[in-house]
Amino acid sequence: MKKHNFSAGPCILPPEVLQQASEAVINFDDLDLSLLEISHRSKNFVAVMERAQALVRELLEVPEGYSVLFLQGGASLQFVMAAFNLMKAENGKAAYLNTGTWATKALKEARRLGEVVEVASAKDQNFNYIPKNYEVPNDADYFHLTSNNTIFGVQIKDFPQTEAPLVCDMSSDIFSKPINVSDFGLIYAGAQKNMGPAGATVVIVKDELLGHTGRDIPAYLDYQTHIGKDSMFNTPPVFAVYVSMLTLEWIKAQGGVKAMQKRNEAKAQAMYGEIDRNTCFEGTAARDDRSTMNACFLPKAGVPTERFDELWKAAGINGINGHRSVGGYRASMYNALPQESVDALIEVMQNFEKEQG
Amino acid sequence: MKKHNFSAGPCILPPEVLQQASEAVINFDDLDLSLLEISHRSKNFVAVMERAQALVRELLEVPEGYSVLFLQGGASLQFVMAAFNLMKAENGKAAYLNTGTWATKALKEARRLGEVVEVASAKDQNFNYIPKNYEVPNDADYFHLTSNNTIFGVQIKDFPQTEAPLVCDMSSDIFSKPINVSDFGLIYAGAQKNMGPAGATVVIVKDELLGHTGRDIPAYLDYQTHIGKDSMFNTPPVFAVYVSMLTLEWIKAQGGVKAMQKRNEAKAQAMYGEIDRNTCFEGTAARDDRSTMNACFLPKAGVPTERFDELWKAAGINGINGHRSVGGYRASMYNALPQESVDALIEVMQNFEKEQG
Repeated sequence: MKKHNFSAGPCILPPEVLQQASEAVINFDDLDLSLLEISHRSKNFVAVMERAQALVRELLEVPEGYSVLFLQGGASLQFVMAAFNLMKAENGKAAYLNTGTWATKALKEARRLGEVVEVASAKDQNFNYIPKNYEVPNDADYFHLTSNNTIFGVQIKDFPQTEAPLVCDMSSDIFSKPINVSDFGLIYAGAQKNMGPAGATVVIVKDELLGHTGRDIPAYLDYQTHIGKDSMFNTPPVFAVYVSMLTLEWIKAQGGVKAMQKRNEAKAQAMYGEIDRNTCFEGTAARDDRSTMNACFLPKAGVPTERFDELWKAAGINGINGHRSVGGYRASMYNALPQESVDALIEVMQNFEKEQG
Repeated sequence: MKKHNFSAGPCILPPEVLQQASEAVINFDDLDLSLLEISHRSKNFVAVMERAQALVRELLEVPEGYSVLFLQGGASLQFVMAAFNLMKAENGKAAYLNTGTWATKALKEARRLGEVVEVASAKDQNFNYIPKNYEVPNDADYFHLTSNNTIFGVQIKDFPQTEAPLVCDMSSDIFSKPINVSDFGLIYAGAQKNMGPAGATVVIVKDELLGHTGRDIPAYLDYQTHIGKDSMFNTPPVFAVYVSMLTLEWIKAQGGVKAMQKRNEAKAQAMYGEIDRNTCFEGTAARDDRSTMNACFLPKAGVPTERFDELWKAAGINGINGHRSVGGYRASMYNALPQESVDALIEVMQNFEKEQG
């Protein structure tokens, strides 16, 4: 039975990508060797790394003066690397917008290296909205944002204009819509939502921002190390980079990030429409800040969730249990999730409502 | 045509492992979902992580009081983490044995954090031997070794006994033979030789050594972070951990690391026997320090290598070009390389010698 996979991440990938990835594990590029057992310096894998980087540039229209890297360690290592690379050694000062669990973790890592100004926090309402009308100190070395919050289902719709370079963790919405890369100094994202499997991290960094902190940075943590070695400073996560490349090719073939945006907005509109209409459920995120990626909703008081859980499981739906910090349900609708999966969930919600009378 | 894969790493993996890995990319555990698209917190993947850790413990007979972790970033990130976790913040002092490219890199990372004593270096002879009879300062926070040098083909056969805890980068020979884990304070290894594909790193650390540096360690770099979260502090490299688990199961089914040692010694004996016998070639490493994993050899003066290259390529042999720092040839004979591949290479060397008359 085909599953409707709403997993929050690692998450659904296109079936064509999975098919190609599966084949490459046995025989890659007709070499009669597995992708897993060839040198990362072979011309076949170097071509994969170059193609993956070129696709990032093409899909996001990355301007000149930016480097594109594939690293390891996920966003959690980027919390450390962003601060090491951009916060000045003397009187370092960074600004952070606190929009949830991951933003809080990023901010804590920066505090080890210098002063951190939390310009605003949505903690007062369990991170169910994106704070606005905050002030960012002009003398901050950078201003850090988390574009989408998978746990609470809120998303920044308009990025602020600031003196300080913008640093953005886009782990859960990169490649879901167009962005203006030149507005940012640093973008990073774990691959395991819209871009590929767990194990690779993409970094897009403005070269001129690097090398000015006066800080002695460990080699692995220094973006300049990886830029100088074309993401081959050490053995890269070969398979995760390859599957990311395949997924980026798929995005391109589908019409690029504009086409993704159109699909994602249609899915989100249908999903939130049902959440608002259905008398058994209610959304948790502030309406203006609702994420197109992750729709969080709670059963209304007295609604028997056991029966609802039976119904969606019977319909082949997977992964809609909410995060423990919010409870209820979360429908994650990343790029590869088809409209028919959203329609299937909506049908279950409607049938459940009818049953409840 | 079946290839004889002598790649130095990423390297050959058992065909059964590749088959299972390929299938899991389409349908994992009969979930009708790919391994790449399920939550790392699902019970199916948690079972993989636990099994992988348990197999490390079983195969290496890891004693109580040690933690086993699966991380990202390869040995290169461990160069940084080892120093952050073990070198004291005040008057920190570490000892390093310099046996090659990777040892040199490890040592450089430690220098950023404190005093480093290079107890001996084999640089004077292009790292073609393992220094002996060096003194390790008793007050060193730790003593760092690299057990096997893939580039120059030398391997430590007997580990020293020191006051300072031993830290060892075993990236290229872990699981190739039994080791006495209790002799070490910290062992780390990138997976991509004997253990699995690129993208996972195994760490075995003695718990009582941690937490005593007085250093503020970034969360991702702190072993205690990962121990406290059972290697799930952030999304682990799911596929690389899974394939490592499969490879460790394979090692177990073959008879464990003692059986691997027997096979590896037989392969190395045959290979070095031919290098010494054949009048066209000569080995580069000091005899007592020759690696069972990587046999490096050079053509003797006047030997026409183009013809030799033709012959081994025609025999389906892959990956025996030497590293640019040494030149010539390198036959890497990791666990999964069968004796028949070594025999095939030896046959080519013998045929070539006959041709040369």
